[in-house]
Amino acid sequence: MNIQAQEAVRAWGNAAGALGELLQGNGSSWDEAREAYLDAMEMLFPPPEGVSISHVDMGGVPGTLITPEEVEEGRVLFYIHGGGYASGGPRAYHGLGGRYAKSLRAKVYIPDYRLSPQYQFPVPIDDVFAAYRWLIERGSDPRALVISGDSAGGAMVVTIMRKARDAGLSLPAAGVAISPWANLTHSGASATEREGLDPLCTVHFLNLLARNFLGNTLPTDPDASPVFADVRGLSPILVQIGENEVMLSDAIRLAGHLGENRVRVSLEVWPGMFHVWHLCGGFLPEADGALKNAVTFLETAMTAS
Amino acid sequence: MNIQAQEAVRAWGNAAGALGELLQGNGSSWDEAREAYLDAMEMLFPPPEGVSISHVDMGGVPGTLITPEEVEEGRVLFYIHGGGYASGGPRAYHGLGGRYAKSLRAKVYIPDYRLSPQYQFPVPIDDVFAAYRWLIERGSDPRALVISGDSAGGAMVVTIMRKARDAGLSLPAAGVAISPWANLTHSGASATEREGLDPLCTVHFLNLLARNFLGNTLPTDPDASPVFADVRGLSPILVQIGENEVMLSDAIRLAGHLGENRVRVSLEVWPGMFHVWHLCGGFLPEADGALKNAVTFLETAMTAS
Repeated sequence: MNIQAQEAVRAWGNAAGALGELLQGNGSSWDEAREAYLDAMEMLFPPPEGVSISHVDMGGVPGTLITPEEVEEGRVLFYIHGGGYASGGPRAYHGLGGRYAKSLRAKVYIPDYRLSPQYQFPVPIDDVFAAYRWLIERGSDPRALVISGDSAGGAMVVTIMRKARDAGLSLPAAGVAISPWANLTHSGASATEREGLDPLCTVHFLNLLARNFLGNTLPTDPDASPVFADVRGLSPILVQIGENEVMLSDAIRLAGHLGENRVRVSLEVWPGMFHVWHLCGGFLPEADGALKNAVTFLETAMTAS
Repeated sequence: MNIQAQEAVRAWGNAAGALGELLQGNGSSWDEAREAYLDAMEMLFPPPEGVSISHVDMGGVPGTLITPEEVEEGRVLFYIHGGGYASGGPRAYHGLGGRYAKSLRAKVYIPDYRLSPQYQFPVPIDDVFAAYRWLIERGSDPRALVISGDSAGGAMVVTIMRKARDAGLSLPAAGVAISPWANLTHSGASATEREGLDPLCTVHFLNLLARNFLGNTLPTDPDASPVFADVRGLSPILVQIGENEVMLSDAIRLAGHLGENRVRVSLEVWPGMFHVWHLCGGFLPEADGALKNAVTFLETAMTAS
């Protein structure tokens, strides 16, 4: 990892510190800690040139729309941000969302769903699904609609497709799950083997986030942990995971689970990479390489469908 | 699967029938059965236009060289054919090898290694490795050298990289393992779940092939079953597997094993596809799609190295 990426990861970890304190029952204001986190992320990962950013109402769910200068007719990316269901927001994704928009020549919609512990399972997922439903019901062509997300949002890529299937809504043409938080029991081997390698995500922190999100729901709930879900009939999905992540083994398990259940799945393991390294696009070659592969995967599915 | 592919698979299965008889102790001549099988494969999967095919001595191992009209300077693909270590040969791969050569703009070398039961473990692998050593020692640029193979040859993609690493030889820039026979214990869930779906490969047939190849060697030998091998330090590997294959779960396991051990790995599961569907290139879209992805993966690695 180059120095600029190392510094970004350090600053990013620092920005998450106040949220970690709140999860441990210290600190005072979730709103303040979240705003400070978003300020830091927005500064660390600014939008690329050539995109415009606006607010949008997604059927009652607030959201952000990123529009690149060049858009392929009708092409839409529905992007679900991460943050452990407790933090994050579209503002942290002006960089990644903007680069996605430009590479894919697509409008990018990022719903600003409600967060835990104020809104626990299943509210964040329900908000994201309501925004997805709005996109479909306003007439988006599902053959030109794709979906992506990272961390909690990576798990929701699978969950939203399942909910669309069960509701009889059109599925997107394909999805990309970046560093998905696919198993809230953290039973994969990497939860111990990789502990300490990735400064951004420790199992201790993830366990706090899971409890904060789940309330009385079990971590094995299929809507919370897609490795336990019925995934039959979903659209093609690409899973990208960093090899230093504690989530590595459960991401591999998710890909295997999808493949065993007849989903057209691709998996990429990136050695040395950390949680959602894609955010470092523009100054980390592996971030640009992973985004390029994601775009190729999504474009191939849109062309085929 | 379209009708032309269905017919090809049926004819292919019939061509392998005499070999199945020999494995069960019936039939008379391995040489005759193998020749008849190669005749059938050559007719089913002819070379594309625009390639020339010649014989080559690869340091004592006979081989076939496929040269396309356009070659990127120094670019070489080392292709390891499948056939359960008991059958097959370069002649069966004029089609797939020729399309690989054209798409990759590379010379394709296919070693004609010795086969079981006349030559059991490790002779087939040693022959392939001798041919690989010859390629390196004659001065091939490893940054422009890539490797691929199917079935037994897919497992050997991993094994040859390991042997090169251990011998201090240069590794290829990347590898593509097509429908790899990665675990000769057949312990993956798909060995029972998928039994009967793929007409080309049943677990019964694979068990006969494994015994025929292994002699007194255990199926857990890491050189025979790469899921049990030390794979640290290998070059990027793409695993492609058909979702109807009995080998599905063990191919997923191989990809996971590579990723857990810091190899840059990609996995693709193709729903409805059968053992080494790539052979049906030109008349099965999924075959052309999988080959396209394989070429993209190999070219990306060559450009990066």
